[in-house]
Amino acid sequence: MEIVTRSSRMRSICHKLRADGQRIGFVPTMGALHEGHLSLIREARKMVDKVVVSIFVNPVQFGPNEDYLRYPRDLARDADLAATVDADYIFAPAVEDIYPPGFSTYINIEGLSDKLCGKSRPGHFRGVATVVSILLNVVRPHFAFFGQKDAQQTVVIKRMVKDLKTDVEIVVSPTVREADGLAMSSRNAYLTPVERKAAPVIFKALQQVKTLVDQGTNGADDLEAAIRDTIASEPLIKIDYVGIVDSETLESVDEIADRTIIVALAAFIGKTRLIDNIFLTPAE
Amino acid sequence: MEIVTRSSRMRSICHKLRADGQRIGFVPTMGALHEGHLSLIREARKMVDKVVVSIFVNPVQFGPNEDYLRYPRDLARDADLAATVDADYIFAPAVEDIYPPGFSTYINIEGLSDKLCGKSRPGHFRGVATVVSILLNVVRPHFAFFGQKDAQQTVVIKRMVKDLKTDVEIVVSPTVREADGLAMSSRNAYLTPVERKAAPVIFKALQQVKTLVDQGTNGADDLEAAIRDTIASEPLIKIDYVGIVDSETLESVDEIADRTIIVALAAFIGKTRLIDNIFLTPAE
Repeated sequence: MEIVTRSSRMRSICHKLRADGQRIGFVPTMGALHEGHLSLIREARKMVDKVVVSIFVNPVQFGPNEDYLRYPRDLARDADLAATVDADYIFAPAVEDIYPPGFSTYINIEGLSDKLCGKSRPGHFRGVATVVSILLNVVRPHFAFFGQKDAQQTVVIKRMVKDLKTDVEIVVSPTVREADGLAMSSRNAYLTPVERKAAPVIFKALQQVKTLVDQGTNGADDLEAAIRDTIASEPLIKIDYVGIVDSETLESVDEIADRTIIVALAAFIGKTRLIDNIFLTPAE
Repeated sequence: MEIVTRSSRMRSICHKLRADGQRIGFVPTMGALHEGHLSLIREARKMVDKVVVSIFVNPVQFGPNEDYLRYPRDLARDADLAATVDADYIFAPAVEDIYPPGFSTYINIEGLSDKLCGKSRPGHFRGVATVVSILLNVVRPHFAFFGQKDAQQTVVIKRMVKDLKTDVEIVVSPTVREADGLAMSSRNAYLTPVERKAAPVIFKALQQVKTLVDQGTNGADDLEAAIRDTIASEPLIKIDYVGIVDSETLESVDEIADRTIIVALAAFIGKTRLIDNIFLTPAE
């Protein structure tokens, strides 16, 4: 496995791989790798010849009062982990490589970017779309892999790739969870032991929605109320938003009907903001 | 020469060309081809193996009160002209191909897009950057060719390609002019005979700047005043803006010093808005 730090070198490596007929899979991450990332790398490993994992804590997707500075960074540890699942390249560029002086180009997915997390984190998806676009232009992968945990991100990136006719296929893999249901996230490391113990109620509230829907509850208001009740049982947790939305437009729906729905939840535990979601697909 | 209307087909043609080791040159146009476009196609012809010319009147770069609907369209004539200079492919997609329902991704070059023409035409360069990005993703050319007449466009596109690390080289060719100095433009077709006769004063005013600078005038205010005086001699013409700006940042400069400067002018003749510019490069 090679660690590449300059985008010019990463580009020329990938250019040569393509020219040699190798299929490239790309897993963009911000590092602090956990089992969720590793499952994406394994998925890529199965589908392609060469797997590139980027590790880049993207300043542009963080708000001014967010955790950019304290976001966990440990390249050596990440490289070791990526090697255990047979990644071929780690691409870990410096901030100045991706955003040199004078940088001024940004990609907006209008509408989609303003909903759910976008409402709580203005500019977040502009930062995500911009950096993913840059990374895709450097690596030029055949497939790029994202986790369903960041559901809105996958919707935004799919829309961007479709709109800009970027020649890549986006693969979304299921959320990987701890034994108690908590979605894996690099931000789980921020939780105190007491907070960590409270955190699984987020997934519990989402699971409960599935049960309610199976039992015949269809109204979005009723489902949201159930989520809020469940979360309220855990005083350490404060809801940021509950979204029951169309899986493509991210528009709120009034009821669960014949389309795929995302039930998304963002909540604060102390200073830590966690997200999770489930998809409800119509029965065949 | 083949006329291609679907982007999926254009992509697969270009994919095959690349795989066969052919160098691709791309000339994006809105049709209504004139000698300026043909000179770009000739330039491309010299540099690459295959030349793709796109013809697409891009609705997103027109403001609500601009000339999108009346912009001249004649694909058969354009194709004949492109054939005379040995273009290999005309790519003429439908609006719905480039902007299918649900389209919502836009590229902004912040700062650069708001200056000069961007101030007069809000959203114009967002439309230009977005469509050029899409077309580049479909054609994936080695070189893309633009005319210096649209100076701000070339600055914006160069910035975008650099920022997003798009793998293409931008080639800018000199403005082609009528015998009396008027910059060639598809919009010249809108001019009445009387307006057409007045139009060359735009270039005359720019040429005069060069003379003044050669004679030692360096202050941007003095140069702008001279331009305004010259244009004022022609009552049919109304200035939209005069810009004396840095050629990379498009920031106004106070005086002509040691950097390359663009002197840019936009003016209305009747309802027709024309632009022109000259570059002032420091003596070696």
